[in-house]
Amino acid sequence: MPHTVAQIAAALGARFEGAGDLTVTGAAEPAAASPFDLALAMDPRYADGLAKGRARVALLWEGADWEAMGLQAAIFAPRGRLAMAGLTRMFDPAPAITPGLSPLAAIDPSAEIGEGAAIGPFAVIGANAVIGPRARIAEHVSVGAEAVIGADALLLAGARIGARVQIGDRFIAQPGCVIGGDGFSFVTEERSRVEEARATLGKPEQTKPQSWLRIHSLGGVTIGDDVEVGANTTIDRGTIRDTQIGRGSKIDNLVQVGHNVIVGEDCLLCGQVGVAGSTRIGNRVVLGGQVGVVDNITVGDDVVAGAGTLITSNAPAGRVLMGSPAVRMDQHVEMYKAQRRLPRILAQIADLQKTVKNLVEKGRDGDP
Amino acid sequence: MPHTVAQIAAALGARFEGAGDLTVTGAAEPAAASPFDLALAMDPRYADGLAKGRARVALLWEGADWEAMGLQAAIFAPRGRLAMAGLTRMFDPAPAITPGLSPLAAIDPSAEIGEGAAIGPFAVIGANAVIGPRARIAEHVSVGAEAVIGADALLLAGARIGARVQIGDRFIAQPGCVIGGDGFSFVTEERSRVEEARATLGKPEQTKPQSWLRIHSLGGVTIGDDVEVGANTTIDRGTIRDTQIGRGSKIDNLVQVGHNVIVGEDCLLCGQVGVAGSTRIGNRVVLGGQVGVVDNITVGDDVVAGAGTLITSNAPAGRVLMGSPAVRMDQHVEMYKAQRRLPRILAQIADLQKTVKNLVEKGRDGDP
Amino acid sequence: MPHTVAQIAAALGARFEGAGDLTVTGAAEPAAASPFDLALAMDPRYADGLAKGRARVALLWEGADWEAMGLQAAIFAPRGRLAMAGLTRMFDPAPAITPGLSPLAAIDPSAEIGEGAAIGPFAVIGANAVIGPRARIAEHVSVGAEAVIGADALLLAGARIGARVQIGDRFIAQPGCVIGGDGFSFVTEERSRVEEARATLGKPEQTKPQSWLRIHSLGGVTIGDDVEVGANTTIDRGTIRDTQIGRGSKIDNLVQVGHNVIVGEDCLLCGQVGVAGSTRIGNRVVLGGQVGVVDNITVGDDVVAGAGTLITSNAPAGRVLMGSPAVRMDQHVEMYKAQRRLPRILAQIADLQKTVKNLVEKGRDGDP
Repeated sequence: MPHTVAQIAAALGARFEGAGDLTVTGAAEPAAASPFDLALAMDPRYADGLAKGRARVALLWEGADWEAMGLQAAIFAPRGRLAMAGLTRMFDPAPAITPGLSPLAAIDPSAEIGEGAAIGPFAVIGANAVIGPRARIAEHVSVGAEAVIGADALLLAGARIGARVQIGDRFIAQPGCVIGGDGFSFVTEERSRVEEARATLGKPEQTKPQSWLRIHSLGGVTIGDDVEVGANTTIDRGTIRDTQIGRGSKIDNLVQVGHNVIVGEDCLLCGQVGVAGSTRIGNRVVLGGQVGVVDNITVGDDVVAGAGTLITSNAPAGRVLMGSPAVRMDQHVEMYKAQRRLPRILAQIADLQKTVKNLVEKGRDGDP
Repeated sequence: MPHTVAQIAAALGARFEGAGDLTVTGAAEPAAASPFDLALAMDPRYADGLAKGRARVALLWEGADWEAMGLQAAIFAPRGRLAMAGLTRMFDPAPAITPGLSPLAAIDPSAEIGEGAAIGPFAVIGANAVIGPRARIAEHVSVGAEAVIGADALLLAGARIGARVQIGDRFIAQPGCVIGGDGFSFVTEERSRVEEARATLGKPEQTKPQSWLRIHSLGGVTIGDDVEVGANTTIDRGTIRDTQIGRGSKIDNLVQVGHNVIVGEDCLLCGQVGVAGSTRIGNRVVLGGQVGVVDNITVGDDVVAGAGTLITSNAPAGRVLMGSPAVRMDQHVEMYKAQRRLPRILAQIADLQKTVKNLVEKGRDGDP
Repeated sequence: MPHTVAQIAAALGARFEGAGDLTVTGAAEPAAASPFDLALAMDPRYADGLAKGRARVALLWEGADWEAMGLQAAIFAPRGRLAMAGLTRMFDPAPAITPGLSPLAAIDPSAEIGEGAAIGPFAVIGANAVIGPRARIAEHVSVGAEAVIGADALLLAGARIGARVQIGDRFIAQPGCVIGGDGFSFVTEERSRVEEARATLGKPEQTKPQSWLRIHSLGGVTIGDDVEVGANTTIDRGTIRDTQIGRGSKIDNLVQVGHNVIVGEDCLLCGQVGVAGSTRIGNRVVLGGQVGVVDNITVGDDVVAGAGTLITSNAPAGRVLMGSPAVRMDQHVEMYKAQRRLPRILAQIADLQKTVKNLVEKGRDGDP
């Protein structure tokens, strides 16, 4: 899709200099840019790359001397990553989903399909499902009975939306995600060893062998507007009420969200995060890659947890967490430094013990 | 599905009081309950919710004064979660899988399909596969050649059962799980850097660059009765013999079970657990979310491991484990407390060193 | 597939003794071997098993007395696991993918299908996709528009290859893997709380609530020859340039490789590894199960990281890492030992403090 420099600058709310009518068809890293690419060099350390590539126009840091770089035009982005959002949206070719309903899809006659929706081959749309207008549904997608999906959804190959799941507008499902699998909830007839272990802090009594009885999931999943769910991520349905994902929250690949969990608005859950059953995550919470959150706790608004953090108890709003188990980031840094010094310190303590022993003995010798 | 209060109480083996012929069609949290729901309030802290909702009957804690709460009937559950198992089973609407064999499924003519089995659109059943009676197989499921699946199985959308996999009765496969992918097993022509690192405890000699040769997986996967496997979970086939999952074990979403692993009976493997190749897990073992178990070790019967535990060596039967690497839960708590005190302790040690140095110097000054 | 002892030995480059014309049709563990299996007993501890089974020929350790074991022939493997590679390849029955193009597949007429390729039912091949000769593509696989897949590929059930992904020869995709999902990349209009937390080491200023803007992924994924990707693993496309996986690298199940990541050649990424965006992994790197690598760092050639390691900063070539956060393996062992001694040491320090206090007081008393 060709755009002129002036059009791009206008779309980004950015300033340009030079040939505003120059046309580009894509974006590229400076060294790899063709004459038809906008080179992305929002930081002086990319300046060298520009000389290697063949771009005629670049997205540059404020104050860059574009003419000296041999360019014909420049766009200036005060906040580079923000410009990337607008720019990549402009140049995204969008997934190739053929308009209309594929004759190879299995669409239940009772399903309600919004105007302009596209449904690909081998997709399955269940009874009484509601698909919003302009939804794009790729091949092999399942949408269960009575599920509701809002306007402008993009469901990529093999995404699974279970029965009765409710989803807002502009939803994006990456390939293979599963929304509305059953919760993992089992109970034994008598108190189990896990219940014993929790009650006795790790010293359970001998318990008799028991099998697990299944607690079925009668609830669904409710997802707000502007949510994205990553490839092969799983979000389980609730037991009685719905599992909930708030408006604007973004979930990466291979994330597990357990039954009854409530995730607030505008959260980021990075790759391989796991949130166990019935936990509540506030608004604007950011959980780094591989973070774990145990069941039945509350993580306050604006909490940020670094990669690999294991959150084992309630976290107050605004806290920045690290470590396994999680502590405040500054405390974690201090604990970790101490830990690294520990082997050396132990040697010093042994020395100290020897010295003190000598002093004590000398004192005793000198006693009258 | 409507049930009377008396029917529900009988099914749960519970006692009821009041209008036994009152009919409900579902279960709900107290505040959200309609007049046709059974409100779930097994703990006094849910009593407030009852007043907000419109339930006429509730599942209550023993001794609750249901008449004072304005209810027409009450069921009393001594063990609330246990009652949930029976109750949710009664009200589960069950997945909408159309009875019979979909004309859109690709079923090999040599496959043996049990009486009353249902197979959905775009499912693929391989040559000589055996599907037990009353199995319900949803859309997009694959069952490989010569696989055997027992009676009353429920295979949800996109579950993949590989060739020659053997599964018992009442199996549940959540969407997207993969049973019988190839094991991850590679070898280099000469001793590899990893083998060197293990042999030298982290100081490998320089090794020459080598590529990986694939060890193919000739074994299968054998799964006992009453097993459930979560969404997008993966269980690899064995190298020569079968990977095994014992009767009654339940596996959550996004779990990885490596080649040759043996999981015993009645285990729980929570979300994102990983068990590496050739490890043996005993009976009734419970692994919390994100637990990792390294290859070629043995985890004894009745072991319980908290979320995020990394089990790096054999664990004796009955042990409760935490931490990374895993230690006994009580030891972990003690170590962790010490670790948190550590920065403060290091300051005290520095003080102590100064004091002792002074004492030593004073002693030396006083020496004749 | 039957092979004679002499044929097997020749294929493995190994020596045999006894009846070279004896024919076997499979391989088995010693105790489970039938008369038509080659028993695998590369270590003396498997000798007992041989007596229990019915094998007539075994793969044995050098120097084993096969005649005394009642065998009719023996093959001697100096490096047992290496022999396993050759042997399992010989006996692998290979997945049952019907030759030719299934009439139930949806293959875009513009796609270029190599000679001898097989495509299964309900597979979808997009516009202008290129499938190499002899590729075997199982049911439910998607190959996106303009994707290129080399010769002799094996794509198992439900593997998803996104648009414009480029893959070399002999590629193996286990079921359900997703190659070319969108990167997880979002930005806020103003500096976000995460940026604040990174800049202030955990003490972010109050930030105003903001929503996330999506950075679209315009790049693809480029994969070299001889790569294998595990079941339900996800590899995201790059933002501007391609995410890259080098020749000969092997990736296990449920692994997440983020956008823009570069993985070198001959690497092993074990189950549930996560590599965050824009990180570079060198050649011959081995990451154990559940290892995490944060974004925007470099892991040097030949690095080995033990299971559960969290790599949070650049790692020099050749380093062996453990722990969370990662340190050198030997340092980790030392730190961990110290940590286990810590509760005991704290008691000793308290004693020492008391003793020194006494000494100081005594010294003061004795002062003139």
